[in-house]
Amino acid sequence: MSTIEAVGWSASGDALRIIDQTRLPGALVELTLQTVPEIVEAIRALRVRGAPAIGVAGAIGLAVVAEAAALVAPAGFDAQVQDAIEAIRHARPTAVNLSWAVDRVARAGAGTDAPMARATRMRAEADAILSEDRAMCAAIGEHGAGLLRDGMRVLTHCNAGALATAGIGTALAPIYTAHRRGVALHVYADETRPLLQGARLTAWELMQAGVPVTLITDNMAGALMREGRVDAVLVGADRIAANGDAANKIGTYGVAVLARAHNIPFYVLAPWSTVDVHAPSGATIEIEQRAPDEVRTFHGMPSAPALVPTWNPAFDVTPAALITAIVTDRGVHHPPFTFR
Amino acid sequence: MSTIEAVGWSASGDALRIIDQTRLPGALVELTLQTVPEIVEAIRALRVRGAPAIGVAGAIGLAVVAEAAALVAPAGFDAQVQDAIEAIRHARPTAVNLSWAVDRVARAGAGTDAPMARATRMRAEADAILSEDRAMCAAIGEHGAGLLRDGMRVLTHCNAGALATAGIGTALAPIYTAHRRGVALHVYADETRPLLQGARLTAWELMQAGVPVTLITDNMAGALMREGRVDAVLVGADRIAANGDAANKIGTYGVAVLARAHNIPFYVLAPWSTVDVHAPSGATIEIEQRAPDEVRTFHGMPSAPALVPTWNPAFDVTPAALITAIVTDRGVHHPPFTFR
Repeated sequence: MSTIEAVGWSASGDALRIIDQTRLPGALVELTLQTVPEIVEAIRALRVRGAPAIGVAGAIGLAVVAEAAALVAPAGFDAQVQDAIEAIRHARPTAVNLSWAVDRVARAGAGTDAPMARATRMRAEADAILSEDRAMCAAIGEHGAGLLRDGMRVLTHCNAGALATAGIGTALAPIYTAHRRGVALHVYADETRPLLQGARLTAWELMQAGVPVTLITDNMAGALMREGRVDAVLVGADRIAANGDAANKIGTYGVAVLARAHNIPFYVLAPWSTVDVHAPSGATIEIEQRAPDEVRTFHGMPSAPALVPTWNPAFDVTPAALITAIVTDRGVHHPPFTFR
Repeated sequence: MSTIEAVGWSASGDALRIIDQTRLPGALVELTLQTVPEIVEAIRALRVRGAPAIGVAGAIGLAVVAEAAALVAPAGFDAQVQDAIEAIRHARPTAVNLSWAVDRVARAGAGTDAPMARATRMRAEADAILSEDRAMCAAIGEHGAGLLRDGMRVLTHCNAGALATAGIGTALAPIYTAHRRGVALHVYADETRPLLQGARLTAWELMQAGVPVTLITDNMAGALMREGRVDAVLVGADRIAANGDAANKIGTYGVAVLARAHNIPFYVLAPWSTVDVHAPSGATIEIEQRAPDEVRTFHGMPSAPALVPTWNPAFDVTPAALITAIVTDRGVHHPPFTFR
């Protein structure tokens, strides 16, 4: 089982609690956040990251602010809540989960009854989002664990773990579930340049949970497979098209090609909410280009000529043909994929 | 043409001149070295690197020391030269080129005639090694340029460029040769973790020469190929077996698998001296495992949990079956490879 909780309620119940992921792996720092500026800053500065975790943080954050407003200044409740909705919703413009979760909590608080009654409904809704996220992770863990056998060596890319969700993660969920049952697994974590989520986050959270993990640079995956040291690849997804094409962190596609060349099963694990039935294939998924300095620097230190041009796509698309199975909270989906 | 000279004689002719590669890409610093401790430190600290460049540095370094001894203290010539041979030869124990070049210069200085006459023969031998290295690079450039067409986009890995030799490099030699002739090329450079030779060195030297270059992280090569933006892959080699299996910087094998999956020609370019006719296949090539902190850190900055286990092979072996052609100073070798 993962032993960490990336996002939740504070022990006192009146604040949002997150692990500050910008401090990992050097220090485990928990933040308790109560005000809109604190919550917005934490989301914007990537102190909490991963689409599911960001959604839960936004939901709890809004509920916390509403409850404080109902207690302290009920006359200004509507204005304060409306300001909070706007600010939190836009803390990261492209995070669909964030606006979805904030809107859900906001709708729960709609009405003309007493501010505290409305704030209580908002808390209940945020709690539901938190519980659903944990249940989603647990379901992926349950379905995915059936793919793992004792002694398996699993390669993963980026961080689709507990730190990206309120629960035990997505791609890593089956590893935690199987590990809890005594299934011996060994995880190889790609460091995942340029932002090093594998080195900073995946390696750290697996060590916290006592799961054996070995860190490699991204370009070592091929040699590792050729040596016969990888039995399965487990990765997450940011978006899955109706035909099963899956967008995920840059580098995922290369790992998929290598896995196919070595006859290693390649599994994509993600919430059902990631499946976009309106995208017929991966060709319609737009790929964000990010800032050159991510590639020109390593952990803030210059590693290349300051003005060298870069190509820095945030994601790539793995075609369905390279995917052995897709695991969601609804079950294990086998090809041909026809999501609807 | 490459506009840099990684290693050679100082303008005054009485010192070894190198570009301090530990200062790149931040600063272009040339060092002139005259004493054994200076020369040994520069080789040991990787101020000069790349097997051919190290060999030339050792040869010139020894000749410089011998000439100074003949001028200043001819009575102690034999003892001083013998000390210099021992010290420079062992500055990097695993660099075969270094001991080979030092021994060649030492043999040229053997005899019982006047110290200055012997020192002059040593200078001539060092000069021959320098010229041969430049000629080797030029020959690879000439043979390899025939593989390049106007408008081609070339991917390379690590640094097998001018900085690794006394001339225009090995893998990059055809690029410089074609560029000089007005052939338009665009180079994509893998940053090449863990030591980032692609980011620090390849990107820098191509920019110096005015060759258009774009830097990517290693895990972007697959997506780049899938977008149809790579027409050929050019890489170096540290050792080539008789059957054509080629050992090169870690990550080369993965690039070869990706190139094959996208029907992109994959060329290995290296000095003929790299071919080991006594190694029947790559299976006999031993792969050095390097220190975990290379993977856990960059330039001393932690990027992962301090104690996370790592797997850190310095090289991998690309099987001959994935190699379109091998280019040496002797010509373009096509499969099946049967070097003897």
